[in-house]
Parts: sequence; structure tokens; C-alpha cells
Amino acid sequence: MTAATDPTDDTTGLRPATDDTTGLRPAREDLTTITDDEIFLSHVGGKLSVELTAPLETKRDLSIAYTPGVAKVSSAIAADQELVNKYTWTERLVVVVSDGSAVLGLGDIGPRASLPVMEGKAALFKKFAGLNSIPLVLDTNDVDEIVETLIRLRPSFGAVNLEDISAPRCFEIEKRVVEALDCPVMHDDQHGTAIVVLAALKGAVAVQKRELAGLRVVISGAGAAGVACANILLAAGISDVVVLDSKGIVGADRADLNPVKVDLASRTNPRGLSGAAADALTDADVFLGVSAGKIGHELIASMADDSIVFALSNPNPEIHPEDAKKYAGIVATGRSDFANQINNVLAFPGVFRGALDAGARRITENMKLAAADAILSVVGDDLSVDMIVPSPLDPRVAPAVAAAVAAAAKADGVA
Amino acid sequence: MTAATDPTDDTTGLRPATDDTTGLRPAREDLTTITDDEIFLSHVGGKLSVELTAPLETKRDLSIAYTPGVAKVSSAIAADQELVNKYTWTERLVVVVSDGSAVLGLGDIGPRASLPVMEGKAALFKKFAGLNSIPLVLDTNDVDEIVETLIRLRPSFGAVNLEDISAPRCFEIEKRVVEALDCPVMHDDQHGTAIVVLAALKGAVAVQKRELAGLRVVISGAGAAGVACANILLAAGISDVVVLDSKGIVGADRADLNPVKVDLASRTNPRGLSGAAADALTDADVFLGVSAGKIGHELIASMADDSIVFALSNPNPEIHPEDAKKYAGIVATGRSDFANQINNVLAFPGVFRGALDAGARRITENMKLAAADAILSVVGDDLSVDMIVPSPLDPRVAPAVAAAVAAAAKADGVA
Repeated sequence: MTAATDPTDDTTGLRPATDDTTGLRPAREDLTTITDDEIFLSHVGGKLSVELTAPLETKRDLSIAYTPGVAKVSSAIAADQELVNKYTWTERLVVVVSDGSAVLGLGDIGPRASLPVMEGKAALFKKFAGLNSIPLVLDTNDVDEIVETLIRLRPSFGAVNLEDISAPRCFEIEKRVVEALDCPVMHDDQHGTAIVVLAALKGAVAVQKRELAGLRVVISGAGAAGVACANILLAAGISDVVVLDSKGIVGADRADLNPVKVDLASRTNPRGLSGAAADALTDADVFLGVSAGKIGHELIASMADDSIVFALSNPNPEIHPEDAKKYAGIVATGRSDFANQINNVLAFPGVFRGALDAGARRITENMKLAAADAILSVVGDDLSVDMIVPSPLDPRVAPAVAAAVAAAAKADGVA
Repeated sequence: MTAATDPTDDTTGLRPATDDTTGLRPAREDLTTITDDEIFLSHVGGKLSVELTAPLETKRDLSIAYTPGVAKVSSAIAADQELVNKYTWTERLVVVVSDGSAVLGLGDIGPRASLPVMEGKAALFKKFAGLNSIPLVLDTNDVDEIVETLIRLRPSFGAVNLEDISAPRCFEIEKRVVEALDCPVMHDDQHGTAIVVLAALKGAVAVQKRELAGLRVVISGAGAAGVACANILLAAGISDVVVLDSKGIVGADRADLNPVKVDLASRTNPRGLSGAAADALTDADVFLGVSAGKIGHELIASMADDSIVFALSNPNPEIHPEDAKKYAGIVATGRSDFANQINNVLAFPGVFRGALDAGARRITENMKLAAADAILSVVGDDLSVDMIVPSPLDPRVAPAVAAAVAAAAKADGVA
């Protein structure tokens, strides 16, 4: 970017006008007119601000919020540590934690370059769940160091959203942070994705008046999202799940699998398939793409009738949804400019809000399953081929998810 | 606190009415009417909130602030790391870092109980300097671990305010964090206090039409504030500084000194005094109290004519200001209910704002000296026995300090 074309050279601070000059928003917004200038300008100075919850205008205000008044509150917490949850912001503060090793489709771009994504995530926590959230990005990829840092920082927050950490490190980091901390912890790239995928798949089979349990599902991608999707679909009662990685079908016959994939192979692929994507997809009911790869039209064509295709790679789906529609009964993507957008924002705000509302010490499988059902419940009578999940902006979703997750936390005895 | 008397049982969310029902504030506020109920109620949920700087109402907003738009910003930062300062909040984010080991006069109450103080500090950064600030409290007192944690978190913030860390660990922690990080770092209990003390002392001698250099100064307290005050007064040209700790005068004859005090002994006490407080205070010009101890009336009476007494212990000054006034020419305390309040809030917001405005990589001695002069400059023609420093709420102070600090940073070549 040269100085001459730097869009933020606009020192007026005015944003480009939108096309919404009537005050009425079009039913489907035209997102093709978003310019790079608009994107960069909107990011100047970041997307978050820390504000005061009470005025600090007078000596009286200062004496209450700061010295000498604050000493009474600190003394009370010193005498009863639980009071920290009542008299500070930490109980409702979600830290969005990343090392920047697997950011969107961009890969290992490091902690600094990951920050705009983490700020966006923190903004979504506030917008949809009313939770305070801050990004904490770490200048280390070392598993021990990441876990240790969060243990040391434990008194500073109420929950941990792990984000954009590469596989397979993300599995060990999440496992160890969950074990070490007595608060909700979730790697959203795994479980946020899995929850929304399950909600969408339940929506799809409801439209098609089929049963979830009998589906043959093929997952393309054995990273964070692929593994978590396999796990939640198994937990939801689907027995025939086959996972593909870059070498083909993940199965017991493979000698090149890391421990996470060895475990996956032992729990998936019940028909003992081996080979490539074509071997898995022939007669399959569901294609779930969560890698950055492409999938040939002929492979989608080889699937069973009324197939379901979730091509979730962003910004470029594994197959263009209009092409997929030629062969499949129901198609979803991660994009906002097509029907059936499968977006984590349907899950994570409500999951954390529900967990924190309940005072949950961790996030259980049942809480995730309950979140998926709650997402789908919001669609209600609008359920159709083109609406198997709610809009990511639907304000009813997060409260519904939060209520279901809080109830599941109590039922599971973790709250 | 029993449930019955818990002031926050008031679920209306209404705060107690203040006495300011006219809209006009009294010239001197009555702070004696602040109740515990009012203090606790104002702390429910904490004092900070994270807010969005731009709306997230439409798919267009979401596509700009989050995926897919955010990928362009992350890619730009990946290509040019410096852009993180422009397109994220971190460059202007001050982390208030504590282990809770020396909180106000409460001592080692731990990280959780320290949080209300740290939130208050963060609120003051926003209120007076317009800087975003968050508390990070650490569940460790280990010097290596505290330094290491901040190194790992470096991409998450723009400056470090170390707070309420006990001496002598605070000296080593600050030194090592300054060396490790390329950003402004300051232990406020040391340098914030020292800057305001220097400003007030300059104000006092200006009122008395005396010279700073010739003063005999006695500092009671060899902790964080005492050591930093000795250092800044020496840097400002005062040669006769004598420091007292709990055992008496800090001098070369003492065999019980830690390394910090050995160093202090080598640079202070030029007349080679030994003994107790009385030996130091006889004929002294300035008493500076920064310990939690008391000082007898007879000792203040033994000082030279027109003596200057800064009794800064909070909430209980070393000597009540009205008692000190019987013997001293000018009296100051840390309290808001007496004249001449020496409060760090006069220094730290402007110091960090100026350092960040200048893009300073560290905070130098000249930047601190410039801050002191800037604080005093705001008093202007109002300078008097009862106004040797501005009010802590004077909105002119932080901008004046910031401008002076930024200029000094540039002059020192650290920006």
C-alpha cells in the first residue's frame, strides 16, 4: 500500500457513504460494493474501546471509584475471594486468545496480524451476548508456554475463547487449558463450527423429513473444525462418518497418521473405506467441507439423491453453491452472500453467555448439543431449503442458545 | 457483610442520590457522606466496559469488521508488521499489571483483591488521557514469571503500567520489563508519585521564593515511592536527601541493607548522618512521608523555619495536616479532603499519553522531569500556600503533561 493510495489518508474521519440513504435497508444487502478503502478506514485505531461504567467527574466520584473508597472493596475481596465475581468485570470477561498460527484461510500470520480478527471476535461477543471481551495474542507457539501464560493470568478473566490456533497443537492446548482452569474454555474453530454444522444438518434433515442417524457423512478436512465436527456428529447419533485429509480417507490402514487422526480413525469410517475422496463420496448423503481444498463436480454428482452439501471454506467454498445446487438437495456455505450461511457467530456468543450465566466451570458435550438445538429452534416455521439456520444477525439466536446452554450446564452438574 | 446488609441487594440499579440536586456543584464537596453502601453498589459488575467503535448491525458491517473483510487487514499487517499500530487498538492500549503484592496501604492481598484498584486505574487512563486500558493481574509473585508473561503478551498492548508490586521486587521487575520491551513501561507507585512530589516541591519553593537545590530533604520510606522520590529529587538538583526506613537513617554504616538500599545509601545522605528520624529531621527543610508510619509532632517541630511537610500516607497521613500546619509553612497530603492533594493521577495519564503520542520506546528521566514541570505550569497564577499543585480533576493537566513528555521523548531520541 503506497501513501498515495492509503485509504485512511482521509483525515476527515468520515466513512464512505453507504447505499442505504433511505433509512430502510434492502432485504438482501449488496455486499459486492464493499471497497478495500472502506475496510481499512473502518479499522483505523481498532474496533474496540474501553469505557467507564460510571462517571468520574467529581472528587466524590473519584473517592468512590478510586482511593480511598476502592480500598473497602479490595479488602472485602481479600476476605472473601468469591466477591471478585461480583465487584469486578472479570466474571463476565471473555479473553480471545490466539498465537496467530491458523488465521482464517491465511495460515500462520503471527499474533500481530491476527489482531483484527480477534478484535472482531471480541466485538461480536459484546454485540450478540453483551459480554465484555478483549484480545490477548501471544508471541509464542509453544504449547507449554501458552497454557502456562493463561494459568498465570487466570484472575484477569472469566472465560477463554481459544481462536485460530493450528492443529494438532490446538487439541492439546484446549485439553490442558480446560484441565487447568475452573472456567469456561472453548476453541471456537473446533466447537463453534461443530455446533453450527450440527444445527444446520438437523435443519436440513428436518426439511427433507429424514433421520439424522442414518446419514452417511463425509468430512473433508481433519484439522480443528473437521475433528470437532466428526466428534459432535458422532455424539448426535450419526454412526457413518468418514473423514478425508490431504492424503485421502482417514482409516486404520493409514501408517502416516498423527495421534489425533489415529484416534479419529478408530471412531469413524465404520465401513473400513480406504482411498481418495471419490471412494468416500460415492453414495454419501452429506459432504461437509472444512478444508481450503476444492471438490470436483463429478464427486458431488456421485453422491446419493437429495444430498446435502456444506461447502464451508471461506472466502472460496470447496464448490460454488450454484454449481453444487445442480446435484444436491440442500447447499450451505460460510458466505454471507448466499443462503444458509453457516457462521460461528450463531454459536459462540450464546455458548459463553449461557456458560457464564450459569456459573459453569467448563463447557460439556451436552452444552454444545443443546446450543445446536437452540440455534435451529429459532428458525421455527421459516425452515426451508434456503433457511436451515437463522441469519447470523438474528438477535434471537444468542439468548436462545444462552438459555439452553445454561440449562444444560446445570443438568450436567458443572454449574 | 451479611445478606441483609448487602447494599447491592438494591436491584433497582439506582444509585443513592447525591447532594448535588441543583446541578451546581459545591466548591468543596462533602466527602464525609460517602457510605459503604454507595461504594459497593458502584462496584457491582466492575467499572469498565468494552464497547464497539463502529456499528455491527448489518451483513455489510459484519463483512467489513469480520469475515471476509478483516482478512485484508490481517494480510496487510502480515506483510508490514508496523501496520498493527494503525489498524488495531493495541498501540494506544495501556495494560495495568499487578500481582497484588502491595495494594494501597493494604499490603499483599493478592491479584483478585487488587482488581478494583486496577480497574480504577484503567478508568482514569480513559477519563484523563483518552487511552484504552485494561487490568492484567497475575497469579504469581515470581519476578521471572512476571517478566516472561509480559514478553509473551507483548503483541497485545502498547504500554505497561506496573502497579502495586512490592519492593524490592518492583525495582527488578521494572528494570527487566523496560529492557525486554520496546514500549513505554512505568511502575507508577515509583515514578508517578515521584513526578507529582517533584511538581509539588517546586510549587512549594516557588511560593516561598526559595531555591530547590539548597533544600535539606528527609524521605520517610525506602520502598517503591521512597526510592523513586529520592532519585527524582537528586536528578532535579537537590543534593541533601536523607532516606529513613523502619530501622532509621539509610547510610553507609548500616550492615542490614538490601542491594537497592546500599545503592541508595551511596547516593544520598551526604552529611553521613546515622541514627533515627530525629537525627535526620532536626533543621531539615522538607519532610516527605511515603511510608505507612506516624511521625511525632516534636519531630516536625524540630525542622527548620518555613518547613515543607508532605504527609502522603493514605488514608492516614504520617501527621494530620492541621497538626502539621502548626509547625510547617506548607503542608500537603494524599487526601482529597485537604488542600494540596498529591495524587498520582496528576502524572500517569499524561505521561503515558505523551509517550504514546510520541511513539516513545521508553520513558526517560527527562520525560519524568518534564512531566513535573508541566503539572506545576497548570497552577499558574493560582499558586499559593494552599495550591502548590493543580486539582487531580483539573482537565488541563493531562494534555499539558502529555505535550511536555512527548517533546522530551523526541529531545531524548527515544521516539
